Amino acid sequence: MKRLILIISGPSGVGKSTLLAHLPKEEFYFSVSHTTRKPRPGEVDGKDYYFVTKDTFMEMLQRNEFLEWIQVHSNFYGTASSEVEKAFSLGKHLVFDVEVIGASNLRRKFGQEAISIFIAPPTLSVLEERLKNRGTENDEKIRERLQRASLELTYLSFFDYVVVNDDLDQAKASLLAIVRAELSRPWRCHLGY
Amino acid sequence: MKRLILIISGPSGVGKSTLLAHLPKEEFYFSVSHTTRKPRPGEVDGKDYYFVTKDTFMEMLQRNEFLEWIQVHSNFYGTASSEVEKAFSLGKHLVFDVEVIGASNLRRKFGQEAISIFIAPPTLSVLEERLKNRGTENDEKIRERLQRASLELTYLSFFDYVVVNDDLDQAKASLLAIVRAELSRPWRCHLGY
Repeated sequence: MKRLILIISGPSGVGKSTLLAHLPKEEFYFSVSHTTRKPRPGEVDGKDYYFVTKDTFMEMLQRNEFLEWIQVHSNFYGTASSEVEKAFSLGKHLVFDVEVIGASNLRRKFGQEAISIFIAPPTLSVLEERLKNRGTENDEKIRERLQRASLELTYLSFFDYVVVNDDLDQAKASLLAIVRAELSRPWRCHLGY
Repeated sequence: MKRLILIISGPSGVGKSTLLAHLPKEEFYFSVSHTTRKPRPGEVDGKDYYFVTKDTFMEMLQRNEFLEWIQVHSNFYGTASSEVEKAFSLGKHLVFDVEVIGASNLRRKFGQEAISIFIAPPTLSVLEERLKNRGTENDEKIRERLQRASLELTYLSFFDYVVVNDDLDQAKASLLAIVRAELSRPWRCHLGY
């Protein structure tokens, strides 16, 4: 069966990680990014990120091995093309969990082959509530995140689909429906007539 | 919630009527065509067709009340625009069950607003088997229908989606997944940010 490339984005606090964690591991491979930043306590190489030196990252960049990359302060982050082959050799759908600009870059790179999905909060006040309930950020951080969320939501209409994460089960059902529908595209069905 | 226009087509014997009969009536309104031909025994006016006189049909035609129409021998068949309002006033998705040319005409009429779905048999020999098992047509009729099916299958790639009707439950699940996915299009979601 043909496998899909899913580009998933959405504001911080929308519950994207929780939602994605509920997708069956047997069917979905989650792309792991490369980074030059140091691992934080608890982070696992090859799971959270591939932690590489700046030299290695630059070599990969010169060999054109990244689908997209960015520099944030003195750290580099990139998505290696090899993640695509990795997912497909496992016979799984590939999932990119990226911010909106990365999503836009990947969408352009893959064209019609990829499907972009925006995970949206029901309302901005629900998002504010969730960020507060997380209790990991102070008021200023929360204000910053909400401002960024407002900006990100303006990109929503550029996505192929939007999944409103109000109820987790409903959001999961919508995500799986999108996968099922996209597998029903004539150009993805190999029918032997 | 935004309601969809589904244009559904597929060869005779593919099990399209059975499949569509399994869609929940509370959510789906099936467009009824107008025709000038006489009702056959058991056919109900307003259910199988709206049976009208040739004069009435011509008046409707002049008033531009048909989305699409055809003449077959001396009989006329048409899809009235009023079916759209009827479905939407009931708050239901509108389903057109039409042959491939009608599907293509409706798709052009509605543009991106409508979704075209082709119901396909797993293989042509499965289709042949089903037509034979129906026992309603003689060998020549079956040969004719298979030839027509072969032709219709060449239109498949012009449809937005293809649902292979191998297992009825799976086909129904795919159809409902397409509806759910299409309701998750950014341009169909009214999010109040």
